[in-house]
Amino acid sequence: MRLDPIFKPEAVAVVGASRTEGKLGYTVLRNIKEGFKGRIYPVNPKADEILGLKCYSSIEEIPDRIDLAVILVPHSSVIDAIRSCAKKGARGFVVISGGFREAGREDLEKELVNEVRKAGGRLIGPNCQGINNPHMGLCASWPFIGKPGPIAIISQSGTIGAYMEMNCEFLGISKFVALGNKADVDEIDLLEYLADDQDTKVVSLYIEGTKNGRRFMDAVEKCSRRKPVVILKGGITEAGRESIKSHTGTLAGRDEVYDAAFRKAGAIRASNLEEFLDFTIALSFYGPRKIEEVVVITSSGGCGILASDAIETRGMRLMRLDGKVEKLREEMPDFVVLRNPLDLTGSAYAELYDKAMEIIGDADAYLLIFGDPIPGAFDVVRKHKEKNIFVSYLGGGDVEKEEVEKFRNAGFPVFPTPERAVNAMYAVRSYWRMLNKG
Amino acid sequence: MRLDPIFKPEAVAVVGASRTEGKLGYTVLRNIKEGFKGRIYPVNPKADEILGLKCYSSIEEIPDRIDLAVILVPHSSVIDAIRSCAKKGARGFVVISGGFREAGREDLEKELVNEVRKAGGRLIGPNCQGINNPHMGLCASWPFIGKPGPIAIISQSGTIGAYMEMNCEFLGISKFVALGNKADVDEIDLLEYLADDQDTKVVSLYIEGTKNGRRFMDAVEKCSRRKPVVILKGGITEAGRESIKSHTGTLAGRDEVYDAAFRKAGAIRASNLEEFLDFTIALSFYGPRKIEEVVVITSSGGCGILASDAIETRGMRLMRLDGKVEKLREEMPDFVVLRNPLDLTGSAYAELYDKAMEIIGDADAYLLIFGDPIPGAFDVVRKHKEKNIFVSYLGGGDVEKEEVEKFRNAGFPVFPTPERAVNAMYAVRSYWRMLNKG
Repeated sequence: MRLDPIFKPEAVAVVGASRTEGKLGYTVLRNIKEGFKGRIYPVNPKADEILGLKCYSSIEEIPDRIDLAVILVPHSSVIDAIRSCAKKGARGFVVISGGFREAGREDLEKELVNEVRKAGGRLIGPNCQGINNPHMGLCASWPFIGKPGPIAIISQSGTIGAYMEMNCEFLGISKFVALGNKADVDEIDLLEYLADDQDTKVVSLYIEGTKNGRRFMDAVEKCSRRKPVVILKGGITEAGRESIKSHTGTLAGRDEVYDAAFRKAGAIRASNLEEFLDFTIALSFYGPRKIEEVVVITSSGGCGILASDAIETRGMRLMRLDGKVEKLREEMPDFVVLRNPLDLTGSAYAELYDKAMEIIGDADAYLLIFGDPIPGAFDVVRKHKEKNIFVSYLGGGDVEKEEVEKFRNAGFPVFPTPERAVNAMYAVRSYWRMLNKG
Repeated sequence: MRLDPIFKPEAVAVVGASRTEGKLGYTVLRNIKEGFKGRIYPVNPKADEILGLKCYSSIEEIPDRIDLAVILVPHSSVIDAIRSCAKKGARGFVVISGGFREAGREDLEKELVNEVRKAGGRLIGPNCQGINNPHMGLCASWPFIGKPGPIAIISQSGTIGAYMEMNCEFLGISKFVALGNKADVDEIDLLEYLADDQDTKVVSLYIEGTKNGRRFMDAVEKCSRRKPVVILKGGITEAGRESIKSHTGTLAGRDEVYDAAFRKAGAIRASNLEEFLDFTIALSFYGPRKIEEVVVITSSGGCGILASDAIETRGMRLMRLDGKVEKLREEMPDFVVLRNPLDLTGSAYAELYDKAMEIIGDADAYLLIFGDPIPGAFDVVRKHKEKNIFVSYLGGGDVEKEEVEKFRNAGFPVFPTPERAVNAMYAVRSYWRMLNKG
């Protein structure tokens, strides 16, 4: 694969490495050094050594072949750097430096792409927040995110990408790519690459527009058949589209067109940043699941009602407990309200959730709502891990934060409100339905 | 006011106080003792002293007049307790004990109400999570919430009420009432009371249904003219209404009816728990504001686009910066994108937000998006506190958490995504429009 030199290099040059803490040339080198097991060549004419690594005064001095060049020098020096790195064998280029199309220098950007093509290489950027592949320990980006896992994030916005990385790290990241100006590699190339990537189980994509709508939708469709593609699209309004023009210069089409196309292509579309995160987390953890009937077990009657509303609104149903009520009546304390949602009331304790699931048994999905500080919640969920359990843990106090932390450390998602848990469930169900529609 | 003995007592009896940590009779006594400056009389036949307070073996033994009785004894003893407390002068009754209508004992509940009426008193509950008035240091509920402030929370669900209290405490609470079975005092009485309450600047109400729709809507309308009433209504679907029957036995009408009535009455309606919280926080902090044109200043182009989309979707506009662009061009660094959203890019630092607001000056509202860890963010916002600033601080890392904590400690709301900040702005604008529609 022609993107392998970018994501799976054996040797990396950091052109524009810096000794000054706070500068990107320092941060990126430090983040690569943190996890990367291959060879690292910092290039800086003024330094002999940075962060304990021998530093080279020019690319020419690098004594061995390189695969990937991460470039942070001023825009006027980028093309020379590409040329020199290509001579050293580099076929992967990540240009973090700005000063190209976004600054009115289309000419320089064209020249840059030509140089990369001449070398037979591929380019991420320019004007981007870099890439990350935790499976290789290669964080050529910021902040440092080290935990490998199933989630690939492609983002036209560095900040949105970093936000996703940080909040998904507890499940682990397979790839992160900040698209920047996408002068060469774009979302289409990446969807094609990630569709085949064994480490990636879900692709999460923030875009503002695409140059080739038809090819993009084909790529989404092909990738979606193998793994869920969650999309957040910026510029759904006229105001948003106006803002896009100055952000990445992309011309974004009308939203209705995108919406129909996304649906046809099988993408799971998020309508805001929070949903983007929730959908990504849910699809990564649960994968596709057939969910028509849900069992809700709650310590809060009110939250059970909010969950019931959300379940029906999202096209699912509460499972009938008819055959189980007798047994529940025998085994549960008197204060439990014997229906679905099963209301354990404020007197709830962890063992009651356990017992209820033992009795009720199989269900398409469980929603467990911990509305009060309930110690042991995590142990119960872990015990029933073969069941399809979604968890909402209402927070605010220290006990709750501590218990939620236990879930998070074990890589188990917790949603802060019943409605967000049901929304996550809906994404999981939508992907199953997409796969099984014909 | 006949509810004053409940919210502003000079002396409180806690009937069913307990020595056992973990029991409600202990927790409630401890929480009252934590802040209440008046006289406290724990009643427990088996204890001489609890938490350093002299304990009385019977209500009759209490040596002085009481105003409020907080009752936690088993249901069969509640009516006797009411009668004895009434003889001691109590006119306020908060019955936390369950075992009444929700357990099929309508008869007992009727008797309870009769006893309260005979005494000329008013009753909160039974089967509820108590009340809190931080302005009196009177937390006859749990968890302990001590900070006085402008937010009144009335909730048919103890858990939802407690969730709101915990997450609104940084702004301060004026009153909290868990309605429970609302055998006597209901949401109508409380809306009437809180409309006149000087400590309360916003009323936040979670309900599942109401016995008298017309009177309820009148109360909402009257209260809304003085202060915003934020409502979350459980049971908007058939599934939700079925769940309500077993939660509080309330018959809930169809949602369309409620929705039209809420609008007419001027309520600010939230559609889920998270929005309930955001709207309450926003209206408490900002009050009504005329917001048509918004200035967005962001460190993230992508977040600026999401904000633009949200602003247009919610019926507002981006303010044109025409007259200010020249000055901005002179004063801001080259990397800043000179339009609205003003994109300070990843190179943003706190002083740029400051300078931009100095130059742009008055606006209906500012949305400041801190997409990266930006130290000093809080200081800039504080400096421009006379402006109508909404803040979104994208989180995930430790630096962000620390900066967000600074805002929170100063009682300044921070929204976790641009869309949630815009949604909060929308609530503030909706209330202004409601007040100024005719």
